[in-house]
Amino acid sequence: MGRVTVRRRIAHIDERGARGRPDTLVVEEPLEIRLAGRPLSVTMRTPGDDFDLVAGFLHGEGVVRSADDIRAMRYCADTDTMNVIDVTLAEGVEPPEVSVDRSFLMTSACGVCGKTSIDSIRQRSRYDVSADPARLAPETLARLPETLRDAQRVFDRTGGLHAAGLFDAEGTLLAMREDVGRHNAVDKVVGWALKDKRVPLTGHVLLVSGRASFELTQKALLAGVPALAAVSAPSSLAADLAEEAGMTLVGFLRGASMNVYAGADRIGSGA
Amino acid sequence: MGRVTVRRRIAHIDERGARGRPDTLVVEEPLEIRLAGRPLSVTMRTPGDDFDLVAGFLHGEGVVRSADDIRAMRYCADTDTMNVIDVTLAEGVEPPEVSVDRSFLMTSACGVCGKTSIDSIRQRSRYDVSADPARLAPETLARLPETLRDAQRVFDRTGGLHAAGLFDAEGTLLAMREDVGRHNAVDKVVGWALKDKRVPLTGHVLLVSGRASFELTQKALLAGVPALAAVSAPSSLAADLAEEAGMTLVGFLRGASMNVYAGADRIGSGA
Repeated sequence: MGRVTVRRRIAHIDERGARGRPDTLVVEEPLEIRLAGRPLSVTMRTPGDDFDLVAGFLHGEGVVRSADDIRAMRYCADTDTMNVIDVTLAEGVEPPEVSVDRSFLMTSACGVCGKTSIDSIRQRSRYDVSADPARLAPETLARLPETLRDAQRVFDRTGGLHAAGLFDAEGTLLAMREDVGRHNAVDKVVGWALKDKRVPLTGHVLLVSGRASFELTQKALLAGVPALAAVSAPSSLAADLAEEAGMTLVGFLRGASMNVYAGADRIGSGA
Repeated sequence: MGRVTVRRRIAHIDERGARGRPDTLVVEEPLEIRLAGRPLSVTMRTPGDDFDLVAGFLHGEGVVRSADDIRAMRYCADTDTMNVIDVTLAEGVEPPEVSVDRSFLMTSACGVCGKTSIDSIRQRSRYDVSADPARLAPETLARLPETLRDAQRVFDRTGGLHAAGLFDAEGTLLAMREDVGRHNAVDKVVGWALKDKRVPLTGHVLLVSGRASFELTQKALLAGVPALAAVSAPSSLAADLAEEAGMTLVGFLRGASMNVYAGADRIGSGA
């Protein structure tokens, strides 16, 4: 596994003038994903949990449904970095159709990458989250950001990372991943959940440290998550998608204060 | 032009319970870019300055060098939304080679999209920013974030937008653009600069409201910007690229306090 942070000599400037000092930066490096040797996608990511990232990505693209759909993943030996992973799909699993109109590409900050036309952006989820009986107490939701923040060790050192945390309906943190790319953090969490046989993520809550975009909402939906919470603002399309899908979407989750953009009926005491 | 914000009925929950209220959300909508009728890329963007966005994107991809390289841009009449733009390049301007290995794709939060292999990520700039004689006073840099923030009207209403601001070396704001996608905000600014015949952006400073990733640094470099400043953290690769290119990279620019990750020699009183 590559390094997650690197030290670098910088100049700090403030009212007292300039002085040299070391600083810790979050590592951003490309990860090339190959399918049976053929380049499929590159993401700019923070090294770590790369296999989860790849599994979560392939799941979000509809290529795999479970961890069993992947026979093997390995770092390519023909490169001198840990930045190329080759995936072998299990027998019977169709590789995605890689064409100009439907490539599979992504970066440190995207999630619907690899689409050349609007029609190809929207993906249908295998799971109907509207039927998820989970109920979430506001008090439980209120505790999530602090729990996530406490777990974010790399952010503390660099200030440079997005985080995604998967919780159960009682607010217990099951998995937390950090990455320079917010969609990578979500892919890593979904990849972990695949490995842990938890997908569809019925009764779970996904919390993201930043904003809720369309792509993050769709990724949650594709993994069967009934509730997505974000520390910051959702976009219009994220709210529309959540509403349509019967998913609960919470934004500006800051302590006991939160805005519910869709699926408010799922939030309550459960009494 | 589409709407930049939309009103939505939400449930606000806090210690006093839940109550309905209207909220303002930033609009996120796909924009499909076509070249001579052929789909080239989709980005998830906030409507507004779409032509600048397209011009800046095509510049960043090396397709156009100046505004004159684009003969015409128009919203496609065959769709019922303002979400498809068709571009006609000027005579003699080569359209990009759209292939599986080198597609042109992007989303609300990416910038090196459309690459299937690591080799295709790094682009060579036409401009040598290391030779840019601009000097920047720390006092000037210190004022930039507040100037940008004051200009961010949509953020004030939604909390959901990234911003990019182009300044001259004296700290005068020349152009500010907001978008759900940080690379879109930069593309819109570069597109504006192309239209204003300012590229290469010698002697200019680009400020971004969030973090400085590799892709934003590369976009600045491709437009000939000698100094990139970010309110938050840079990534390792952003600092590496800036160092290599002789570009000044400032992070954590917060009032008089800032970290200089590369090109510190450009910052001083000029005396």
